[in-house]
Amino acid sequence: MSTPAIPATALQLRSLVKKSGQLELSLQSVPVPEPRDDEVLVRVEATPINPSDLALLFGLADMSTAQVSGTAASPVVTATVPEKMMRALTARLDQSLPVGNEGAGVVVKAGASPAAQALLGKMVGIVGGEMYAQYRTMKAVQCLPLPAGTSAAEGASCFVNPLTSLSMTEVMRREGHKALVHTAAASNLGQMLNRICMKDGIALVNIVRKPEQEEILRKLGAKYIVNSSSPSFMEDLTRALIETGATLCFDAIGGGKLAGQVLTCMEAAANANAKEYSRYGSNVHKQVYIYGGLDRSPTELNRSFGMQWGVGGWLLTPFLQKIGFEAAQKLRERVAAELKTTFASHYTREVSLAEALSLDAINVYGKQATGEKYLILPQKGL
Amino acid sequence: MSTPAIPATALQLRSLVKKSGQLELSLQSVPVPEPRDDEVLVRVEATPINPSDLALLFGLADMSTAQVSGTAASPVVTATVPEKMMRALTARLDQSLPVGNEGAGVVVKAGASPAAQALLGKMVGIVGGEMYAQYRTMKAVQCLPLPAGTSAAEGASCFVNPLTSLSMTEVMRREGHKALVHTAAASNLGQMLNRICMKDGIALVNIVRKPEQEEILRKLGAKYIVNSSSPSFMEDLTRALIETGATLCFDAIGGGKLAGQVLTCMEAAANANAKEYSRYGSNVHKQVYIYGGLDRSPTELNRSFGMQWGVGGWLLTPFLQKIGFEAAQKLRERVAAELKTTFASHYTREVSLAEALSLDAINVYGKQATGEKYLILPQKGL
Repeated sequence: MSTPAIPATALQLRSLVKKSGQLELSLQSVPVPEPRDDEVLVRVEATPINPSDLALLFGLADMSTAQVSGTAASPVVTATVPEKMMRALTARLDQSLPVGNEGAGVVVKAGASPAAQALLGKMVGIVGGEMYAQYRTMKAVQCLPLPAGTSAAEGASCFVNPLTSLSMTEVMRREGHKALVHTAAASNLGQMLNRICMKDGIALVNIVRKPEQEEILRKLGAKYIVNSSSPSFMEDLTRALIETGATLCFDAIGGGKLAGQVLTCMEAAANANAKEYSRYGSNVHKQVYIYGGLDRSPTELNRSFGMQWGVGGWLLTPFLQKIGFEAAQKLRERVAAELKTTFASHYTREVSLAEALSLDAINVYGKQATGEKYLILPQKGL
Repeated sequence: MSTPAIPATALQLRSLVKKSGQLELSLQSVPVPEPRDDEVLVRVEATPINPSDLALLFGLADMSTAQVSGTAASPVVTATVPEKMMRALTARLDQSLPVGNEGAGVVVKAGASPAAQALLGKMVGIVGGEMYAQYRTMKAVQCLPLPAGTSAAEGASCFVNPLTSLSMTEVMRREGHKALVHTAAASNLGQMLNRICMKDGIALVNIVRKPEQEEILRKLGAKYIVNSSSPSFMEDLTRALIETGATLCFDAIGGGKLAGQVLTCMEAAANANAKEYSRYGSNVHKQVYIYGGLDRSPTELNRSFGMQWGVGGWLLTPFLQKIGFEAAQKLRERVAAELKTTFASHYTREVSLAEALSLDAINVYGKQATGEKYLILPQKGL
C-alpha cells in the first residue's frame, strides 16, 4: 500500500469564545504532528456532527445571531453569547479550542512500536476530540481497526451513538430493570437502540413528538411508539409501561415536564395491580437518566410518583470507566462486528470543513432535528 | 409489677376520605385485641405527630376548610379534598384508616412465647402504623425495649427521626461522600443530625430560611449555617461546600429551586480548583435525596451543574431493608443507647387523642413549622 504525501500543515476547525462575549468559529492551518512511538497519524476522512459536539462548538452562543465573514475556503463565523451564559464558560474564555468527538480515517504514518506499525494503511475509528481536522495523532491502542471493506463514512460514528445506545441496555441489566423507555426516539441513536433491542429481545417504549417520527420507527419495526403531542399521551404511555414493565428511561430532551411525566406513568403502571393503599407510593424504583439537552429549559418534576424514583445526568465516558476496560471492550467489539447493520449511521449531507461553517449548514445541524445528520469530510475541497 | 386493668374496647384515631371528596377524622371505639403467642399488647402512652404522618392523616385535604363537630370527647373533623388530588387517593377511598407511625408504651399483656413474656411490664418503642390509639398489639421481636428509666415521652420518637437522621450519615458513607448538606435544618430531625455529625466528626452544611432557625443551630454548636433567604445564599453555600467537600444533600423541602441550587453550588465548588475546561462539567457526582415535601410545588432543576448528578426520592424503610437486618439493628441499638442525648426529641405540646382533633392543634402541627412538634398521650383524658 502506497503512503500518500503528508503535508506539513493542514486544516483544523477551531471554536473560540472571547471575553467580549463573541463566539468565533474558523479554520486554522496547524502543523501536522509527528506520531510518537506508540502513536499513529490518522488522515481523518469522515467525522460526524453529533448533538454532543454542539456545546463545545457553539459555546452556548445564540446561533440566530451568526454571521459569516472571511473567504469561501476560510470562512469565519461569529455569533453572540448571551450574557447570562458567560459565567458557565469562564474556564474556556479566550482559548481557541479544537472540536469533534469522533471520526474515521486511514493510518498514514506510524510510530516505531509494533502496535502502531500494525495499523499502517488501515481504516480506523477514533474518538477523543479534535476530529474536525484533516489529521490527528492517536495512541495505537485507542484506535478501533474497522473490518476490511468499511468506508470512512461507515466508520465515522462508531463510538458515540453505538456505544451510548448499547450502554443503555447494559445499564438496564446492571441496575435490574427489564425494559426501556427512550425519548426523541426516532433520532439516529434512537433507531440504533431499536435495532439493538429487537435483536436482543428487549422491550423498548419509544417516545416521539411528531407523526413522521412515529412513521420512521414503525417502518423500522418498533412495537411500542407513543406520541407526547397526543391528548392521550399519558394513557398511551401508561399502557405501554404496563405491558413492558419498563422502569428505566433514557431522556435526550432534559427540559420541561417529560421526565416527570414518564415517572408518573411508571408509577401508575406499578400501581395498576396494587391492591393496598400506600401513602408513600409503590415500592418500585423508577429511574430517568438525562443524557441530552434538546430542551434547555428547567426540568420540572411534580413528584406525583411516590418516593422510589431517581433522575440524574448520564454520560458515556464515566459509565465506560465505571464498568472497566474488559466490559467496555466487549461493547466496542460488538459495535465493530455489527457496524454495517445494527450500528449503521445515516447522514443527510456530507460537507467539507469550510462548508460546515456556512450559515445554511449551521441552521440545519444546529437545530438537532431528527433525521438531519451532517458528516464532515475533512479531505473534501472547499 | 401489677398488670393494669385492660378495657374491652379503647379509642383509635381514624382518617377516612369519602368518594364525595370529604375527609373525616374521628375517634372510634374498637375492641382491644388479644396478643397471639409471639405478640404483646402495648398500652400506648406517647406517640408523636411527625411530618411523615400528615399525608395519611389529612389525605391531601385542604385543612383551611376544616370544621369540627361532635362532642369534646368525641370530635369529628371534616375538610374538603381538592378535586385534582382525588385521583392520587383512589386506593384509599371510603376506607377508615388508623394513623400514627411510631410510639412508646408499656407491655400490659403478652403471648405465650418466651420473647413476648420477657417484655411484660417493660417500656418499649414501637413502629408500624396505627399508633394514634390507646392499645396496639405488636410482634415481640419488633419492639425496642427502652433502657430502664426511659419515659414514654422520651421513647415515643425513637424510630422515625433517629433512624432517618442516622441513616443519612450511613448513606453518606456507603455512597462515598465525605460531608452532608441538610435543608429545613433546624427541624427536630435536623437538630438530631447536627448532634450525630458533631459526635461523629462529620461536616454538615445546614440550610435554613429564617434568622431564628440560624440561631437554634448556632446555639447547638453547628459550624456551617447558610440562610436561603439571604441575597448571598449561593455564594455562602458554595463557600461552605468548598470547605466541607459535601456532595450529598438530604432535602426535606422537595419543591421549588432549592435542590437545583444545591447542585449548582456543589458543581461550582467542584470546579473551584479545576484548571481545564470540560464541556460536560466536573466529574464529581453530586446527589440530592428528597425525603420530605414541605413545599408541594414542582421540583425545578435548571441543570446548570454538569452531567454527574442525581436527584431522587428517599425513604427510611426501603433503605433499612436494603442494608439488611444486622446493619439496621446496629443503627437501632445506637438509638436506644443515646436516646436521652443525641436522639432526644422535644415537644411543644402534649395533647390527648381528642385534643389532637381540635382546630387549634391542627392549625399548629399541620403547618409543620420548625420547633412546633406535638406529642399525643392516648391515655390522657379529653
